[in-house]
Amino acid sequence: MTSRNVYFLSNRTAITAETFGQSLLAQFPNAKFSVVTMPYIDSIQKAEGIVKRINQENSQAVLKPMIISTLADESISQIIHQADALVLDLFQRILPDMERLLNQHSAHQTGLSHRISNQLSYESRIDAIDFSMIHDDGGTTRFYDKADIIIVGVSRSGKTPTCLYLALQFGLKAANYPITEEDMLSESLPKPIKAYQNKLFGLTTNAKRLFHIRQQRLPQSRYASMEQCHKEIQAVEKMFRQLNVPCLDTTAISIEEIATTIVELAGLKRKHKLLTR
Amino acid sequence: MTSRNVYFLSNRTAITAETFGQSLLAQFPNAKFSVVTMPYIDSIQKAEGIVKRINQENSQAVLKPMIISTLADESISQIIHQADALVLDLFQRILPDMERLLNQHSAHQTGLSHRISNQLSYESRIDAIDFSMIHDDGGTTRFYDKADIIIVGVSRSGKTPTCLYLALQFGLKAANYPITEEDMLSESLPKPIKAYQNKLFGLTTNAKRLFHIRQQRLPQSRYASMEQCHKEIQAVEKMFRQLNVPCLDTTAISIEEIATTIVELAGLKRKHKLLTR
Repeated sequence: MTSRNVYFLSNRTAITAETFGQSLLAQFPNAKFSVVTMPYIDSIQKAEGIVKRINQENSQAVLKPMIISTLADESISQIIHQADALVLDLFQRILPDMERLLNQHSAHQTGLSHRISNQLSYESRIDAIDFSMIHDDGGTTRFYDKADIIIVGVSRSGKTPTCLYLALQFGLKAANYPITEEDMLSESLPKPIKAYQNKLFGLTTNAKRLFHIRQQRLPQSRYASMEQCHKEIQAVEKMFRQLNVPCLDTTAISIEEIATTIVELAGLKRKHKLLTR
Repeated sequence: MTSRNVYFLSNRTAITAETFGQSLLAQFPNAKFSVVTMPYIDSIQKAEGIVKRINQENSQAVLKPMIISTLADESISQIIHQADALVLDLFQRILPDMERLLNQHSAHQTGLSHRISNQLSYESRIDAIDFSMIHDDGGTTRFYDKADIIIVGVSRSGKTPTCLYLALQFGLKAANYPITEEDMLSESLPKPIKAYQNKLFGLTTNAKRLFHIRQQRLPQSRYASMEQCHKEIQAVEKMFRQLNVPCLDTTAISIEEIATTIVELAGLKRKHKLLTR
């Protein structure tokens, strides 16, 4: 099948154009796309260069290309619209209705307010990252009283990426503590986390997936055997149930979804606003 | 000033609705908004509950509320549109034009393709996170041959969050190595990174900001003194120049912008596609 060229464009990081653009493309499972991301198109000159490049690349193309963009600057947006492509600018599609409701013109530029907010929340993010790094994998358990959440689960159930995401994206101090076989045999919570039951959140996954991940790490080991994976998952899920630890199955979901779900379920207050574009 | 209620809604994480929504709001610096994010509105029942809640919350409001949403499912979207608010659904605003160009109907549902892609790239992300964790702050230097990039800079110049972001969001194996005073006095690169000059990327910041960050960590120390911060920044920037290490000033930009810029400047190939919604 011939694939259609799609360009994600922005005057800043293009993270939104790309993330949302991919969601849009996924709505057409029968079409084939070839995508390119182009961040920092922040001058007339760059915009003109991009239009030239896109027109050249598609001069022989069977299928008309598509441009999905977030361009706050109108003069840059106008140039991009000269490309021989379907241009879908996310700002243009939304701002006019907002202007009518608010009865005022939009600034049509990269909001300075972003920068300032980012500066202000930078420190809470850095603090959270520092916290999550030293409290990874039970490394330190000393400052659990300062933790927003303590993620628990067996080895390779997704604790580390989840904590890092919580810290980076939401500015949350997320520690994680590995549940060992010994812990599971005990009838109560491991000592370091016992006093913090209300901060615990459990991760689990299916045994087959755990087996697959552990095999890549330590093939042929007892640790990575199907039997061991089965046993640990069963025991840890029983433990979560008996001790009333809220718990999430991470088998089929992404790190972003795990983190967002935990924030929701645990009723956490995010300390960092998502401000990327 | 009276603030207007704004709701970011999605049948999934609402990360796009919130990120992009914040960008849109920033275009109106003279208006005041009070925002709430509502992820996982994935059933008719939940949608009806949300409409009721929004109508109730705003029954006495002077300003009409706004809903910014990414709802692929049409039946859920229709219910949300019954709210007494300006509803801006990002899908609805874009999909019709795409359908016309592609000459086919969109699936109007959370794309399964996401899940699959996420599964496939999950492992490369986890590998990259593992790599970045053990190669943080010069912890290990053993596998630098496997690194996609090695971030260098003085203490507290933003190396760790940058590496974690590169790993989490782009699946890149990012190591980081701290440049010490001793290193700066030498005329050549520190031994562990010498063989990898083509993978190096330098971070710098202004001395005032470095001072501020270090003061929070070790107040009153020589390490955190203005004199020391000045000296280190000057020396490390000289080092980057002399040894032709590409370099970025992180003073006024966010972690997302640092990471995206490095990917651009270093010409790195991302191993993980941004697929969140």
